Amino acid sequence: MAATRKVEIVIIGAGPAGLALANWFRDSDIRVLLVDTKPGPTPRGKAEGIKSTTNEIFDSFGIGPQITAESWRLEEIALWGPRKDGGDGIVREQVIPDRAEELGKARESLLQQSRVEHHMLQNLLSHSSLEIKYSTGPTSVQIDESHSHPGNDYPLSINLARVKHDENQANGTQTANDLNEDGNIEEQIRAKYVVGCDGAHSWLRKQLDISLEGDLTDSVFGKSSRVVDMIPKTNFPDVRRVCYLRAASGTILMVPRNNKEIRLYIPVESGSALPDPKDLTFDRILAAARQIMAPYTLEAGAVSWWSAYRVGQRVGSHFSSANERAFLVGDAVHTHSPKAGQGMNTSIQDAYNLGWKLRLVLQGRVPVAPGALLQTYEAERRPVAQDLITFDRGYLKLFSASSAQFDTEFLRAMKFTTGLSIRYLPSCAVQLPRGVDALGPSLLKADLVPGKRLQDFQVVYQADGVSTRIQTRMQATGAFRVVVFAGDVANAELLARSQRLGEFLADPVSGLGRLTMARGDTSATWQQVPVEVLVVHCADRNRVSLLDWHEVYRPWSSDEGYDYWRVFADAESTHDGHGRVYERLELDGKKGCCAVVRPDGYVGAVVDVDDFQGLRGYFEGVGMLQAENPVVNDKS
Amino acid sequence: MAATRKVEIVIIGAGPAGLALANWFRDSDIRVLLVDTKPGPTPRGKAEGIKSTTNEIFDSFGIGPQITAESWRLEEIALWGPRKDGGDGIVREQVIPDRAEELGKARESLLQQSRVEHHMLQNLLSHSSLEIKYSTGPTSVQIDESHSHPGNDYPLSINLARVKHDENQANGTQTANDLNEDGNIEEQIRAKYVVGCDGAHSWLRKQLDISLEGDLTDSVFGKSSRVVDMIPKTNFPDVRRVCYLRAASGTILMVPRNNKEIRLYIPVESGSALPDPKDLTFDRILAAARQIMAPYTLEAGAVSWWSAYRVGQRVGSHFSSANERAFLVGDAVHTHSPKAGQGMNTSIQDAYNLGWKLRLVLQGRVPVAPGALLQTYEAERRPVAQDLITFDRGYLKLFSASSAQFDTEFLRAMKFTTGLSIRYLPSCAVQLPRGVDALGPSLLKADLVPGKRLQDFQVVYQADGVSTRIQTRMQATGAFRVVVFAGDVANAELLARSQRLGEFLADPVSGLGRLTMARGDTSATWQQVPVEVLVVHCADRNRVSLLDWHEVYRPWSSDEGYDYWRVFADAESTHDGHGRVYERLELDGKKGCCAVVRPDGYVGAVVDVDDFQGLRGYFEGVGMLQAENPVVNDKS
Repeated sequence: MAATRKVEIVIIGAGPAGLALANWFRDSDIRVLLVDTKPGPTPRGKAEGIKSTTNEIFDSFGIGPQITAESWRLEEIALWGPRKDGGDGIVREQVIPDRAEELGKARESLLQQSRVEHHMLQNLLSHSSLEIKYSTGPTSVQIDESHSHPGNDYPLSINLARVKHDENQANGTQTANDLNEDGNIEEQIRAKYVVGCDGAHSWLRKQLDISLEGDLTDSVFGKSSRVVDMIPKTNFPDVRRVCYLRAASGTILMVPRNNKEIRLYIPVESGSALPDPKDLTFDRILAAARQIMAPYTLEAGAVSWWSAYRVGQRVGSHFSSANERAFLVGDAVHTHSPKAGQGMNTSIQDAYNLGWKLRLVLQGRVPVAPGALLQTYEAERRPVAQDLITFDRGYLKLFSASSAQFDTEFLRAMKFTTGLSIRYLPSCAVQLPRGVDALGPSLLKADLVPGKRLQDFQVVYQADGVSTRIQTRMQATGAFRVVVFAGDVANAELLARSQRLGEFLADPVSGLGRLTMARGDTSATWQQVPVEVLVVHCADRNRVSLLDWHEVYRPWSSDEGYDYWRVFADAESTHDGHGRVYERLELDGKKGCCAVVRPDGYVGAVVDVDDFQGLRGYFEGVGMLQAENPVVNDKS
Repeated sequence: MAATRKVEIVIIGAGPAGLALANWFRDSDIRVLLVDTKPGPTPRGKAEGIKSTTNEIFDSFGIGPQITAESWRLEEIALWGPRKDGGDGIVREQVIPDRAEELGKARESLLQQSRVEHHMLQNLLSHSSLEIKYSTGPTSVQIDESHSHPGNDYPLSINLARVKHDENQANGTQTANDLNEDGNIEEQIRAKYVVGCDGAHSWLRKQLDISLEGDLTDSVFGKSSRVVDMIPKTNFPDVRRVCYLRAASGTILMVPRNNKEIRLYIPVESGSALPDPKDLTFDRILAAARQIMAPYTLEAGAVSWWSAYRVGQRVGSHFSSANERAFLVGDAVHTHSPKAGQGMNTSIQDAYNLGWKLRLVLQGRVPVAPGALLQTYEAERRPVAQDLITFDRGYLKLFSASSAQFDTEFLRAMKFTTGLSIRYLPSCAVQLPRGVDALGPSLLKADLVPGKRLQDFQVVYQADGVSTRIQTRMQATGAFRVVVFAGDVANAELLARSQRLGEFLADPVSGLGRLTMARGDTSATWQQVPVEVLVVHCADRNRVSLLDWHEVYRPWSSDEGYDYWRVFADAESTHDGHGRVYERLELDGKKGCCAVVRPDGYVGAVVDVDDFQGLRGYFEGVGMLQAENPVVNDKS
């Protein structure tokens, strides 16, 4: 009989999705078991593109600087097409900045998946409530759906077995599917939740009987592709830019890799089948690339990898199952082509959406109807996957359009692939203003909208004038943030309003004090509050005196002093210019407003500064406060 | 008989100066022995301010990001004075941005000396040719001055002894001076050079019989001072800004420290003596501070340190001795008040000036008259120390001037304390254009001047459009850089000029090829060239094709591909604006020029793009090439 033990969560698959999910539980005592049939960390992954919004996630995990330091910024996209005069060869048509204006920072960068995983993994290793087991996979899962969330029971039973790796076989890893036949169970795990981050051939998806919907045909340009990573010797001038090359003989997507390599994607044209594997040789791929790139030369230095692949564009019918006891994340529940660099990003973002919900529920912070919060994972992420596939289908058609149309379309595509157009639908975690049923144009005008990511604007600290970005300030601790856009508080009436709001925020009975105030005055206890209060005002900083304000805005610890870094100004910085937050978000400095920002950086609600019940209503809606009884159910 | 062994350099003192010096030898096989009588790394140092130019040094050692991430930016300086209406108490007079316009980046930041030392020390530990011995000090030094530099002999003999630390005594560290009496020699070291980084009471300075010139009187405001580090509880609004407070009862310099502490310097007024040590209590210091800060309140949270001190303003008569076999660095050879945050910075900058010269001489890269290069250390750094003391004498008088004058004077002072006004005098390492004897106004007009630091401008890489700062690109490898400001190379004539220059730079016989070209085509061999070639052009990037240029501008390695990152454009960046290098340095884009940048980032010479003999003449002057014979003496 194998040993039995209990954990709160089993995560199947330690790739980008599984590691990102696990990172949500670092500073908690939630027991997480991460298993992967691989013998160890991925030595080499195919995905590489990192979008800015994914970098914000790394920042919130505290590993942004390491990843940024290692990664390569992509700044420009060059388009090459056939010569207009009918002669042979390609010419540069245009160079487009790789930029999304509203981001105000680099849009994408590039780092090997294995290095991204390395940093996420390192970030987990010092946290003892997390355990990672390689060469291990599940052989069965049983779920009793009748229990309430999160409950004291462990209604999932998962059997784990060791995987035998055959070192003599190049691709000698058993899949989790093989394990069923072995049956040499090593451990029986009792758990509260299971999450499948186990890739396109997901074992858990099959167990849950969730189907993928979509197609595997070759009808769309670019679905079958050859790919090469190599050091080029060439006189092609744009070898360190992202390039789309269109020639009579085919097309290439060329992406610079870390150091001195490039990657070439060379699609098999529509209607052609993938070549027979034994016909696929590096020399043939190189010959195809040379033909497209002529008159420029191309010789190969070291070649680190080449292959060919076909991608289906499919989405799972469900993202969760068994009364929200089991979830699927990333490639396990949607697949698409790698051209727009979405694979790793979407997987990490799926995981980021799910993680904080599981964390809050397991910590007992959602005593009221926790299942509803867990349901929002599928409700929020499945439409994103569907949109991605719609986008993916249309994306590469773009490159046959004329250059004139191209600009506008391409900019829109960049906004999409960066994730800036994502808007989650109303739910318990995304609440529209009272009396508003849907997001009309008037609400969408200002760029502070429930369901959208809070823009990452630059502010300066009231206390010291140091500039920072607001997303960097929002670490993945599981805390919500009430961001008070207090307006021009040099105006006495606006100052008085934010002081009254401060009293409400600190009031433990009828206000939010049970969520915002620490039980103890060390900075450690203040870091654990379920709701952190931040202020962004637009007054002249020299007319504002932070330490006169309500303590909720600048908590005091007798050992450690004030927390000076919760109040920001929308003001000129000494070295970094002006963030123009109020202007960019279209906020009225004479009125202000108050945004609830979820632990994942998305806006949960926007209310007036004196709409105390609107604020309270949000947290009642999420299930963190009882509507009848203002005292939070204290299970944490 | 104690053991005897040989090292190239003995560094006495592992504080900021000694550690910075040692960092110059990291990737060499030069044996360096660093000794310090302390039992281990400094647990707490007093110095904290880091100027931008010192941060450039950390960048060049590869530890800039770590130090920047931990340090606190100082963005604003607030001046407070007596109320104008004659009432009691102080009012804010003005807030000045803590900025030096020409830097284009943060001017100063703050990090505890012990953390700065930590990062410099960590950076040394993986280099096996460096050894650090704590609890160890010298007891005697003998120098035979008759040998030539660097020579195969070890003309210095240094005895080392272990220091006994008395744990029961609060300040129980023996000084090196005590060691003479013990005489329990542990090791006899034979060395080529010795450097005293051993602080204000320098043992080596006394052995070399070098006197400090200057005074210890109390005649200048601020020479005697009380100092406190504590967590404040206050309603003073500028507690996280650098503040100068002037009240009838005294003055305070208030500086925010890491985390939530502040430091108060409370000078003892001119004419007063320091209080008797037994009268000096924390409560009295706090009472003095309260009186000055009224009507604002001040209570002390945790107090981590307080003291009183007196500083002499003195400079050593010599910075080197014994035919350039012995050197003194930092506090060992100049002392001044800490008010302008110059102590740690100047020590590190002294060491930075000396290190590369010793490195090149020891590597045999200066076969011709190496002593002349070593003499430039004193010639360059002694005037800096003298200027600093002149500045220091006048600095705090400034704060009694009216606010109107203050602005201009203070901005000039900020430029001085940042180190931007330093200009080394002509020598073998700083050469004026032929026919020019002194730096007239015409040469000083453009800000690319022999003897001054190369401005840290932003450029974008020709190959990929990524922006970078030029100083970040210049790692402390001991390499000189020839920076070719190639001008508008879309113009065929200018392109042809830089190609001809490329041929000269690569020519091993009559050009600089022996210094610029690697012997082997791996990137490792290319990283070891004594002179690295960089280009900054101002042409339209899309009209420049890097890979058509001469190989000296984009070396090829068959294993690793091209080095794409030696050619820069003065161009708009996708995300970071335009560096405007040609405009800021007042360079003529139709003509260009060529700068030799020394390993320490200072400009050694500026010549025309086609002045091949001017370029060659510089390296002959330094002693790296024989004037008669164009083949370098190959001892490395």
